[in-house]
Amino acid sequence: MYLSEIGEFGFIERFAHRFKDLLCPNSMGIGDDCAVLPCDENHDLVITTDMLVEDIHFIRNKISPYDLGYKSLAVNLSDVAAMGARPVGSFLSVAIPENIEVECLDELMDGYHALSDKFRLPLMGGDTTKSPDKLIINISVIGKIEKGKARLRSMAQSGDVIAVTDTLGDSATGLQLILRELNSSLEADWLINRHNRPEADVEEGIWLAQQSGVNAMMDVSDGIASDLNHILKASKKGAEIDLKRLPLSHQLLNIAEKHQFNPIELATSGGEDYCLLLTISPEEFPHISDSFENKFGKKLFNIGRINGESAKLKWFSGNREVVISKGGFNHFE
Amino acid sequence: MYLSEIGEFGFIERFAHRFKDLLCPNSMGIGDDCAVLPCDENHDLVITTDMLVEDIHFIRNKISPYDLGYKSLAVNLSDVAAMGARPVGSFLSVAIPENIEVECLDELMDGYHALSDKFRLPLMGGDTTKSPDKLIINISVIGKIEKGKARLRSMAQSGDVIAVTDTLGDSATGLQLILRELNSSLEADWLINRHNRPEADVEEGIWLAQQSGVNAMMDVSDGIASDLNHILKASKKGAEIDLKRLPLSHQLLNIAEKHQFNPIELATSGGEDYCLLLTISPEEFPHISDSFENKFGKKLFNIGRINGESAKLKWFSGNREVVISKGGFNHFE
Repeated sequence: MYLSEIGEFGFIERFAHRFKDLLCPNSMGIGDDCAVLPCDENHDLVITTDMLVEDIHFIRNKISPYDLGYKSLAVNLSDVAAMGARPVGSFLSVAIPENIEVECLDELMDGYHALSDKFRLPLMGGDTTKSPDKLIINISVIGKIEKGKARLRSMAQSGDVIAVTDTLGDSATGLQLILRELNSSLEADWLINRHNRPEADVEEGIWLAQQSGVNAMMDVSDGIASDLNHILKASKKGAEIDLKRLPLSHQLLNIAEKHQFNPIELATSGGEDYCLLLTISPEEFPHISDSFENKFGKKLFNIGRINGESAKLKWFSGNREVVISKGGFNHFE
Repeated sequence: MYLSEIGEFGFIERFAHRFKDLLCPNSMGIGDDCAVLPCDENHDLVITTDMLVEDIHFIRNKISPYDLGYKSLAVNLSDVAAMGARPVGSFLSVAIPENIEVECLDELMDGYHALSDKFRLPLMGGDTTKSPDKLIINISVIGKIEKGKARLRSMAQSGDVIAVTDTLGDSATGLQLILRELNSSLEADWLINRHNRPEADVEEGIWLAQQSGVNAMMDVSDGIASDLNHILKASKKGAEIDLKRLPLSHQLLNIAEKHQFNPIELATSGGEDYCLLLTISPEEFPHISDSFENKFGKKLFNIGRINGESAKLKWFSGNREVVISKGGFNHFE
């Protein structure tokens, strides 16, 4: 049997349960954006790790080394942000093919340092090794959060508003433009930049975790169609998303029209948005949403609500339910 | 310029200094077996990460999946042991080529679990992804230690006895036998097993760090010729090693004679021993050595001493100084 038959999560299910009885009390292991480990009386640690493999996660001549360094750290910071924690240290392993010049690695470290510096985050260790052919990057980030305040995927409540912290689908559209070598406009460049140099919502995540109405939280890495299902499964809840309310940038809308991309598919299944997906108690949402906009100068977008206990995700276009097949959009009724 | 011209440590030097001013007080970043991060009033955390790349660190059809899973964790536990800390959680990233069967991955996780279970160490998170061709494994381990007790490479004192916790060179000899397909004896099998399934000296490291006479400590991963130089550089000391006192297993001696391997070269530059290399105050050494042997049923081998402040490593054969060129043995005078 090959991995393609059971998928990443099928593989993880084969061993995860065997490690559960090794977990210490008040710890949380496999299954959320980060693991949680008790630290001192008042704080927990969160820890995440992500691997980026050449020709799977990036194509070496389609992203600058600077952006690659920046993005590799950003995708990890996004996991820490999703818990609501402040990152305190990063660890970088890199396997380097012989044909990469040191100057290119310097640029990669420039990008890594630029984002590290933004959050005053020290690179505390790592591993450097040869690779036979592909460039491989693995990063681990440790964060710190007030004890018990980490926002988990399992915390969604019936009636919660489902919100995201940014427009969806820009990164996936950027990727399509990169793959088709369509980068001849400012809008295209903007979308490509959204793909190559994502920003992690670190300060947003920290602030949101301090608001008592914020319940479940995670980051959007695979697209909300897949990511929201993790929240529903962990929280044993259902959800309704209104496709008409998905926040889409005018750049995405213009480029999608120009090249006949499906904007809804890009926004729901494209992935790599690295904004936050969260559920907020409906009573608190208006107040939190206003404060968020005042503080960060951007909207908290209400895209749907948590409902019932069916772990089922339903899609609406306004009042009309629409059908989407698993793993992407096959058609709309 | 290519990495081969400046080496791993040359590359690290190009960026490490830029992250130093981001470090928090009482933290320690790049440059030892683990980073150190303050935890609570009475404890520090230590963190290490190591990447194993197919065809660089292992050859897929020369090691069983079980041993590969076991060894991948062991090399990380060895770094935690080298600080004297108790491991509290591990994180595993794995990039998987399509042609690996799930059953083979199950075996890999069996080996990983067996060693985890030995130290009641939970696998707390990770990342699973596709790889275009090579199997890549990255592991991070977090450990905990009484505040200020972590043993650093910089702690060697003039006059200290230099000691190792096991025989040297077995793993490197095993590797030679694997590469030459010479596995037709029990001795060969034993040496190959030393290469494929190393044991991390976790309990030994924890106990040693509790002894006040134990100063610098690290694990033997590249061979003592290279590893001891890290202690000398960090401690600004020199050292003398007596080659006649290097602990060599009878299996290594017999196989080396049979196949005309150089046992001294294997023991000093072979690497992957994953025992501990430490320096101990000469007054405390006899007592610590006796207690160690009583407790663990194996010797603490005295192989030389720290002397002066030259950061120079001198080799002796009994009373006669011998010459070894950098990076390995070219000749003995």
